[in-house]
Amino acid sequence: MENFIFKNPTQLIFGKGMISKITEEIPQDKKVMLTFGGGSVKRNGVYDQVCKALEKHTTIEFWGIESNPDISTLRKAIALGKKENIDYLLAVGGGSVIDGTKLVAAGLCYEGDSWELVLNPSLIKTAVPLASVLTLPATGSEMNCGGVISCRENKLKYSFASPYTFPVFSVLDPETTYSLPSHQVACGLVDTFVHVMEQYMTTINQSRIMDRWAEGILQTIVEIGPSIMKDQTQYDLMADFMLSATMGLNGFVSMGVTQDWATHMIGHELTALHGLTHGHTLAIVFPGLLRVLKKQKSDKILQYGERIWNITNGSKEEKIEETIVKTETFFRSLGLTTRLSEESIGVDTINEVEKRFNDRKVAYGENENVTGEVAKEILINTL
Amino acid sequence: MENFIFKNPTQLIFGKGMISKITEEIPQDKKVMLTFGGGSVKRNGVYDQVCKALEKHTTIEFWGIESNPDISTLRKAIALGKKENIDYLLAVGGGSVIDGTKLVAAGLCYEGDSWELVLNPSLIKTAVPLASVLTLPATGSEMNCGGVISCRENKLKYSFASPYTFPVFSVLDPETTYSLPSHQVACGLVDTFVHVMEQYMTTINQSRIMDRWAEGILQTIVEIGPSIMKDQTQYDLMADFMLSATMGLNGFVSMGVTQDWATHMIGHELTALHGLTHGHTLAIVFPGLLRVLKKQKSDKILQYGERIWNITNGSKEEKIEETIVKTETFFRSLGLTTRLSEESIGVDTINEVEKRFNDRKVAYGENENVTGEVAKEILINTL
Repeated sequence: MENFIFKNPTQLIFGKGMISKITEEIPQDKKVMLTFGGGSVKRNGVYDQVCKALEKHTTIEFWGIESNPDISTLRKAIALGKKENIDYLLAVGGGSVIDGTKLVAAGLCYEGDSWELVLNPSLIKTAVPLASVLTLPATGSEMNCGGVISCRENKLKYSFASPYTFPVFSVLDPETTYSLPSHQVACGLVDTFVHVMEQYMTTINQSRIMDRWAEGILQTIVEIGPSIMKDQTQYDLMADFMLSATMGLNGFVSMGVTQDWATHMIGHELTALHGLTHGHTLAIVFPGLLRVLKKQKSDKILQYGERIWNITNGSKEEKIEETIVKTETFFRSLGLTTRLSEESIGVDTINEVEKRFNDRKVAYGENENVTGEVAKEILINTL
Repeated sequence: MENFIFKNPTQLIFGKGMISKITEEIPQDKKVMLTFGGGSVKRNGVYDQVCKALEKHTTIEFWGIESNPDISTLRKAIALGKKENIDYLLAVGGGSVIDGTKLVAAGLCYEGDSWELVLNPSLIKTAVPLASVLTLPATGSEMNCGGVISCRENKLKYSFASPYTFPVFSVLDPETTYSLPSHQVACGLVDTFVHVMEQYMTTINQSRIMDRWAEGILQTIVEIGPSIMKDQTQYDLMADFMLSATMGLNGFVSMGVTQDWATHMIGHELTALHGLTHGHTLAIVFPGLLRVLKKQKSDKILQYGERIWNITNGSKEEKIEETIVKTETFFRSLGLTTRLSEESIGVDTINEVEKRFNDRKVAYGENENVTGEVAKEILINTL
């Protein structure tokens, strides 16, 4: 096991009816800016619950944080928050609203332009306290300190993180997920699955306990995914999904182990260039990455195949192949395509991703060997 | 899944050589009281590492917090801390030192006698910040807010907990465990195992993900236990043990599920009456509890037996019996006795435990049905 430092101060407030608890969690003397996406929270009753809980607080509202939150939108939120002397933020929505609100929290305490904070998060020296009411299990943003911000003007999408942008608390009520579009649910399941994979699918024998916990989330998603896609109003299943999504990216499964993240970095480019939903890009890229890196990751693929898919027969090569097929088939069983060609994306995009990696001189993965060239090979494998 | 609120703010600093990090974690302007047990930290080099890290801090030392820390010892530590105006505590040792130091942290901010805080933890309104350097993986005290305090004068042993007594940080260096007595290591393995069981061995279908994580720790302890007992200087094994012990009682496996804790409550009485090491009492009580409550817990015993011990053949009754035997055999394989009679403890003690439960009018377990009478039946089953 590698040395590590772990800390996660976010309070989880979990269960049906728990939105009412925010009354007592946000100090009465704070001026709160509520941040929202496009309006689904008005249709599913979450907005009303939040307003009722905060009826004695001083609040203003900022609407319109889009999927893959754009820096131009967040600049407007920061300007409003500065003008109104906001000293508490409550994000109400999915991962995009929470990610964006984290940047707003930091931006409210920063004199320069907030895009600088995305490019260089060490500039974040403090932030306004933020909390969240989560409505879409997927990104894990509700219990970590990171976010992903887009700049559509330049077709860019970058992640940032700062110890100052953990939510103080996050409310997770599984009932708020019943009305989500089923494509979002499928993407959320894959997002959770691949978050865990980024922290697990590296090398064996780093930590038995972390492997077991990562596999525990993968197993849970495999078990509940198909049932959820048939009926997403089953409380216990959505509760396990919501908790798994949070546990998948809050640091609990990455203590002392190496991490990959190449799938995410390639996926972000596909979203930046084509607007594909984040989880969907992962369903396309991850099987391709396994195919290209199957030698490097062979021992871990075998462990994953045996423990999650009960694959124990055949040669090493056959077992690896079967494991990759099972993984891709699982993503397809949720109703997602898993090939770039199915989304009418071709070699032009692949060449552009390669160029972007090369221009930035980056290489991802646990061995830092997923260069532009390897990213291209992975994407060709997803055609 | 039940509604729940979760928060754990403790920072983990994990790995070889990490004791040096405490230099930067404790503010320079604090007056620190270091608290210790009996002196093993002087023999294994931990004391020297801590002194070196704090050479520029103002420190005093308090020695002699015994196993099952006694209120009379802690009163002395509190008196010293008040006299010296201590405003930071660093516990260096195992769970007993950390547990005791938590009470000292609260006692330094309390006017009355600190035993009152054990009996009524809601009296704790604040505490001096405390941190720890852990040397014995077992109790999980390094990452939770609870402690167990004894009053030998009256042969009592009670637990307490307060949100103010989480360690600010805990340093876990697996190398510090190499020189532990092997009986302590065995007891620590069982303590970890049964901590998890208290949060898991109740009813099925409460949370798939929590079940998987609990099973992940159990599986890890089963895998590494025998190898550790042969050679406790294998870094990766001790790292997994140390991390598992912490994860076993920091709230990470108990979100939204019911809990038992009857084994611990009975075990505490055995320690109070006979001085048996805590983990050893659990190795005796837990198999007896399973035998007595096997009907109530049958579905969960079957799940545990299949997932941890691969028990899939035979009738339901046979599988349950085999699972209980496997569990007791595992504890014995670590070198511990699992029967009261092997420790020359008999019916007098059993009657006294029953009387104590009855006098306090308590009943433990997820169904609150482990009364004095049931506790007696459990202990008779351990003869």
